[in-house]
Amino acid sequence: MTESQQRLPVFSDVRSAAERITPYVHRTPVLTSASMNQLTGAKLFFKCENFQKVGAFKFRGACNALFSYSSEELRNGVATHSSGNHAQAVALAARIREMPAHIVMPENAPSVKIQAVRSYGADITFCEPTLKAREATLDKILTQNSAVFIHPSNDVRVIAGQGTAALEMLEDYPDVDCVIAPVGGGGLLSGTALAVHGINSEMSVFGAEPEGADDAFRSLEAGRLIRPENPQSVADGLLTSLGDLTFPIIRNHVEQIFTVCDHKIIEAMRLIWERMKIVIEPSAAVPVAVLKQHPEIFSGKRVGVILSGGNADLDSLPWNNT
Amino acid sequence: MTESQQRLPVFSDVRSAAERITPYVHRTPVLTSASMNQLTGAKLFFKCENFQKVGAFKFRGACNALFSYSSEELRNGVATHSSGNHAQAVALAARIREMPAHIVMPENAPSVKIQAVRSYGADITFCEPTLKAREATLDKILTQNSAVFIHPSNDVRVIAGQGTAALEMLEDYPDVDCVIAPVGGGGLLSGTALAVHGINSEMSVFGAEPEGADDAFRSLEAGRLIRPENPQSVADGLLTSLGDLTFPIIRNHVEQIFTVCDHKIIEAMRLIWERMKIVIEPSAAVPVAVLKQHPEIFSGKRVGVILSGGNADLDSLPWNNT
Repeated sequence: MTESQQRLPVFSDVRSAAERITPYVHRTPVLTSASMNQLTGAKLFFKCENFQKVGAFKFRGACNALFSYSSEELRNGVATHSSGNHAQAVALAARIREMPAHIVMPENAPSVKIQAVRSYGADITFCEPTLKAREATLDKILTQNSAVFIHPSNDVRVIAGQGTAALEMLEDYPDVDCVIAPVGGGGLLSGTALAVHGINSEMSVFGAEPEGADDAFRSLEAGRLIRPENPQSVADGLLTSLGDLTFPIIRNHVEQIFTVCDHKIIEAMRLIWERMKIVIEPSAAVPVAVLKQHPEIFSGKRVGVILSGGNADLDSLPWNNT
Repeated sequence: MTESQQRLPVFSDVRSAAERITPYVHRTPVLTSASMNQLTGAKLFFKCENFQKVGAFKFRGACNALFSYSSEELRNGVATHSSGNHAQAVALAARIREMPAHIVMPENAPSVKIQAVRSYGADITFCEPTLKAREATLDKILTQNSAVFIHPSNDVRVIAGQGTAALEMLEDYPDVDCVIAPVGGGGLLSGTALAVHGINSEMSVFGAEPEGADDAFRSLEAGRLIRPENPQSVADGLLTSLGDLTFPIIRNHVEQIFTVCDHKIIEAMRLIWERMKIVIEPSAAVPVAVLKQHPEIFSGKRVGVILSGGNADLDSLPWNNT
């Protein structure tokens, strides 16, 4: 379990985050699709965070975190470990805030992601591709540099930042019946839940999780945090686990978490590319797969869907690998 | 040369087309991209016809054609031959107009396109995959059914319909310096040119064409229509040739046609997917390749770019085939 030693975020943190990051983030569009409505029987409103800077919602949380600290607190820069979107998000936010960013990346990270992080001017330290090596390397970096650690999900500032996507969506479409978001570390889902219930406590919030990385589903069932064992999924952004901040928010605010298999995730991803002509990554397709699989829940409803990101590997599309 | 026996379209035809088709077409968004601006040195405004119904601008022309004829004229329905976007466009427009559509398709057309045309309720006749067989089969269908032929490009109603994309773009961004569109049969480029010069006769209009199918470039150079010989390009929507309506409009209104090789087209297509997270087909990438290749023309300019369509084959991406 990730221990944060922070207080739980509340709705006003999301509101403050929105004010703080508005100058730096894209206000992403909400798209609709007659074809997707027909296929699901629901009326869908897609909040397109694939169009966000760095190609994912992660920039919101990283940006809010970096602009929440004082210059004094950040005098030695920031650090994190990530092979994915959070690395780019922290690197870009640090460049905008004009401070050093130290990013620990596994040595087998895709070269396109390494290049992206480097292009934002971040300092990269490579390590073996295990969680243990990543954490040990990060500890060393944090000690050496006295940098501030920006956790990818279990952080009050990060959660509040991620919630701003749902906040914007509800400003554009206040009359949706429910909202669904993917869940990995839970930063996006808990932020979304805070935003939604801050606006309207009657609105349902749902989570969508890969079957092969279903720790949030099982934690919610058990009523206590369950650490995943060897999670595996094509939705590589959702392999991380809940923490001591994200879990209680999700337990209090999320009505249900649905799990779907990788086959359905890949099918849903392709469907969005074909019908909506937009690029989403596998993790972003998980809620879409859930919507297709559970008409008994969503049919006839107006559903806000957070499309979390668009950083798909164009050299290796999952439907060509199966 | 395609003989139309029609008058040349003028700007008021584009205006009328816009009024006629507005209830049926999507008003597609105009997207911008800081990253694409940086890469080209220009300020780009992308008119996203990949988000149009049937996934391409072709629906505008087909829709205008079908709604221009009287019910009496169309009592026996419409017909065309196409393996691509025009087939779907005519099929959908005919379904909306509630009349039969007879589509001649080559027997090797991709099954996904055949299914799309069939899903709109059109009647499909298959033929050998040669232009001669397509024309002969269409002639037979036209005679048998007394249907009205909807040419994919060399038709006054179709040209006027295609021009509505540029019209909308200039309503949103009247202060662009120039507009660029791809050219195959020339329906889109001639309609675009009419729309642009109807609004502002000082604005430059450019065409973008694959090197392997450069009949428009060569026709403009020669001052007369040159029929292409065995055109080949990854931009499979641009293999057709100009006709007796599209050529004179392009000659009078288009400042220059630039050609680019397939390698650059594929590179530009991938760039748009990666940086803008939208799906475009190879033909739509041709103007983007031109923008990258000619900074001496476009750098520092505000450029309207017609992204013509998004019907890419997701099973076979061109960068994985080279």
